[in-house]
Amino acid sequence: MTQKQQRLRVIPLGGLDEIGKNMTVIEYGNDMIVIDAGIMFPDDDTPGVDLLLPDYSYILKRREKLKGIIITHGHEDHTGALPYLLKDLGIPVPVLGTKLTLGLIQGKLEEHKIKKAKLREVKPGGHVNLGVFGLDFIPVNHSIPDGVAVFVRTPVGNIMHTGDFKLDHTPIDGRGTDYQAIAKAARQGVMLLMSDSTNAESTGTTPSEAVVGVALRDIFMKAEQRIIVASFASHIHRVQQVCDAAVAAGRKVAVTGRSMVNNTRIARELGYLHIADENIIDAYDMGGIPSEKIVVLSTGSQGEPLSALARIANSDHKTVQLQSGDTVVISATPVPGNEKAVSRVMNRLFKQGADVVHKGSAQVHVSGHAAAEELKLMLNLVKPEYFVPIHGETRHLYAHSKIARAVGVPDKNIFILENGSCLEFSEKGARLCDHVESGVVYVDGLSVGDVGQVVLRDRQVLASDGIALVIVAIDAQTGAIAKDAELVTRGLVLGSDSDAMLSDARDRITKVMARTSKEGVTDHNVIKKALRDSLGQFIWERTRRRPMIIPVVMEV
Amino acid sequence: MTQKQQRLRVIPLGGLDEIGKNMTVIEYGNDMIVIDAGIMFPDDDTPGVDLLLPDYSYILKRREKLKGIIITHGHEDHTGALPYLLKDLGIPVPVLGTKLTLGLIQGKLEEHKIKKAKLREVKPGGHVNLGVFGLDFIPVNHSIPDGVAVFVRTPVGNIMHTGDFKLDHTPIDGRGTDYQAIAKAARQGVMLLMSDSTNAESTGTTPSEAVVGVALRDIFMKAEQRIIVASFASHIHRVQQVCDAAVAAGRKVAVTGRSMVNNTRIARELGYLHIADENIIDAYDMGGIPSEKIVVLSTGSQGEPLSALARIANSDHKTVQLQSGDTVVISATPVPGNEKAVSRVMNRLFKQGADVVHKGSAQVHVSGHAAAEELKLMLNLVKPEYFVPIHGETRHLYAHSKIARAVGVPDKNIFILENGSCLEFSEKGARLCDHVESGVVYVDGLSVGDVGQVVLRDRQVLASDGIALVIVAIDAQTGAIAKDAELVTRGLVLGSDSDAMLSDARDRITKVMARTSKEGVTDHNVIKKALRDSLGQFIWERTRRRPMIIPVVMEV
Repeated sequence: MTQKQQRLRVIPLGGLDEIGKNMTVIEYGNDMIVIDAGIMFPDDDTPGVDLLLPDYSYILKRREKLKGIIITHGHEDHTGALPYLLKDLGIPVPVLGTKLTLGLIQGKLEEHKIKKAKLREVKPGGHVNLGVFGLDFIPVNHSIPDGVAVFVRTPVGNIMHTGDFKLDHTPIDGRGTDYQAIAKAARQGVMLLMSDSTNAESTGTTPSEAVVGVALRDIFMKAEQRIIVASFASHIHRVQQVCDAAVAAGRKVAVTGRSMVNNTRIARELGYLHIADENIIDAYDMGGIPSEKIVVLSTGSQGEPLSALARIANSDHKTVQLQSGDTVVISATPVPGNEKAVSRVMNRLFKQGADVVHKGSAQVHVSGHAAAEELKLMLNLVKPEYFVPIHGETRHLYAHSKIARAVGVPDKNIFILENGSCLEFSEKGARLCDHVESGVVYVDGLSVGDVGQVVLRDRQVLASDGIALVIVAIDAQTGAIAKDAELVTRGLVLGSDSDAMLSDARDRITKVMARTSKEGVTDHNVIKKALRDSLGQFIWERTRRRPMIIPVVMEV
Repeated sequence: MTQKQQRLRVIPLGGLDEIGKNMTVIEYGNDMIVIDAGIMFPDDDTPGVDLLLPDYSYILKRREKLKGIIITHGHEDHTGALPYLLKDLGIPVPVLGTKLTLGLIQGKLEEHKIKKAKLREVKPGGHVNLGVFGLDFIPVNHSIPDGVAVFVRTPVGNIMHTGDFKLDHTPIDGRGTDYQAIAKAARQGVMLLMSDSTNAESTGTTPSEAVVGVALRDIFMKAEQRIIVASFASHIHRVQQVCDAAVAAGRKVAVTGRSMVNNTRIARELGYLHIADENIIDAYDMGGIPSEKIVVLSTGSQGEPLSALARIANSDHKTVQLQSGDTVVISATPVPGNEKAVSRVMNRLFKQGADVVHKGSAQVHVSGHAAAEELKLMLNLVKPEYFVPIHGETRHLYAHSKIARAVGVPDKNIFILENGSCLEFSEKGARLCDHVESGVVYVDGLSVGDVGQVVLRDRQVLASDGIALVIVAIDAQTGAIAKDAELVTRGLVLGSDSDAMLSDARDRITKVMARTSKEGVTDHNVIKKALRDSLGQFIWERTRRRPMIIPVVMEV
């Protein structure tokens, strides 16, 4: 046991081979910390699902060891699982984050009616001890203010976890990635670097957020009518730049969309967003202000169907009616999978006569993640012994590992891990240990974790091929059909002559039932199987479709 | 009537505000021609649908006028609706295209068991008369050989229809876009230019296909093990370059994937693909050839789940087993909507140890469509009086119309049309006339046109919220429930205590039935509505989901 406790374990529970639900466990002896607790949003593979959480059973089973949860910044893919994790833990565990990060988390916990969380503010540049771990928080740039990298001192060696970062030499708030702090930490020796891989496939460097301000001012100065800007509500730097460009152009900012209203409020209260009261209003209070004196700041940059921008595009927004000649700026890039939804909204805006400015037509968006050359700089600043690329699909992790090799990290010291991989460090070096329990937990309506592959597969079959129900009433003694079968279909196309087809299907069912009855079958399961096989065959012949078939047998 | 017959009508039936199902009608008096008859592929909005066709009722209703169907090139979004259209027309109508285009169409018609099509080969540079229309076919470059623009002389004025095109100064087959032919046609005066808008948002010029050959040779020369290249099967130029690079590197080309096998065969037979017999084999015949002497040419560049590349990535391909160190080249770009599927395949390939080269890491793909500067050149070469951007979503059509304004086409002479728009030309100029019947027809299994919005909406509800069936047997006289209700759910999550919930639901149903029976209700529809309302409410309370609810009432 003592031997075993000398080892350090690093276990990513989320964020590998995916963009989202970031979560890393660091464990030594009786002490454990967690860095980030994020969610992921569903896609075509998970119809009907609301959210995806990392499976954090490993943490729950060791909850007595858990000394704290560190959140690197306030994005959902780093904070969103926190309410679920805290509820499941059921014991008060400190949550550490910077001021804005905790401000955003506070709002989230309130929505989940969690009142007793132990939120502990850390200062960028500050230091905290959690059990055997010593933590330094190092300021980094990202597409939300107040992000930090975490430098973790452990008895076995030091770990640098970058969080999400970019290297912005001209940041909007003057708070750049702290190279001196990184270098100072690195001089103490870094055993393991875990670094953000999101943009590892992008060559060169990521442009500074400042270039977006230049583009926005240019657009705002030229626009003669109303301007609408859609962006991520959490991107306070971007929001600041929209505000600055609006005020410079003599326009007020009218905010619309729930998360944009909330986040601008929180950011102003906490001192992260600066705009005079008279220059920022709710979109409900726009009445009377001429179009050319307004910039509407809106949610919906991802084409979300119920967002403010989608409502504006569909002429369905309560206070913002688009006029021909208005300018709409999409100040964001579509997250993979959202391309079509964004395009759909843009097409509708164009049809209404708006001039839509997007990343393809002006520099109205830059990434919040470091590109290849900056990842090299991080590696060379830190000079780690071991390297684990995190935050990215497998393709990004491989690209990042190539970058690490290029700057001299030995191949054998680079580990491309999976969620649930366990990397163990001792005085002998690093080695992979057994996979831990890991995976994905689906949040679906009020249910957390009850959706499984069966339900998802059912939904996919229902979506592509529909459903056919056949209800037969049988005589309990003989198994003979007691009355005409009922046949109901949904999402299935029976062709132009559907009545004839339904009638043929009923004939087929009657024949099946005559056969089973003749054979003396009264077992419902046998009858159901016969009905399912026969009706499935019939529908395939006539439609080349394989709907879900649900036979119901009732005894009368 | 005579007056009316003097007018020329141009009616796009597909390809506007969408990428796909291109189709344009040109009509004058008793003569009508159709340019292209394409399909579109389904997306999330059309679950379970196989194909989308343009609604060509307008053509069917005037079939006696139809003098011919011109196909500009052999891509599915220009040819795919032809089998359906020909079947629906039921009369022999000439189909005009170049040799390769007709070769590919021939294969398609055979699949649909259409034997009597009147395929008429036209030579690029050739001339044909169809009724009052005089047609010139002008060679253009595209991502398939043998593409043409169509110059249509009409009694009212001349029309230039570009088809899909790019301007490639160093084409693989030496057959460039014929600037002299375009200029010669243009000198006769062009009343209307209809031009490809796909890449109108891309600045600058589209690189020559030749650059891909350089990148491929470079990759092939360096690779030490097997190489797998995935591309579009119809992209014969790309296939030629893969073949050339393979032969230059001393490797044989092994072809896999049905459409790749078919298209390479057709292209070789018709003289569009040149590779010696001994250098091209079927992937089934690879046995015994060392890995470093093989280039596998595969379908699946769009991440299609059943394609050869997806099978290789899933270790599920009959003859190609991936080895760590193999090189996979994705020589294509994901069509919008396919990004995630392509990424998924790439991630699996990386996990198997392959080095995956894609557009982001080397110039292994270039577009087949002209970018902004080339669109300007086309406009300036043709100098049209009127301009209609075609082939693109609304955003692309707007971008193209901006380009046209920039080169001097007057704003009032630019028409951004929709599918079904009717643009009428007379000696007085152009004017919009009434919209014609148009839209989308869904092909779903064996059904063409029977899927409607109801079915699609049903499928979407089924996919997101599942289905709940409740079957009650009632006494025909009293309406009283005769036995316990049956409750079946699919795709719906009842939570961890699903048995208790089902039991509660049955209690709720029993109560509803007691109430209706007490009220003397025997009308099935009234009972069904009561069941649907009550069960819907119950499920919403317990799950926050709104599944489709199907009540079935049986009398016993």
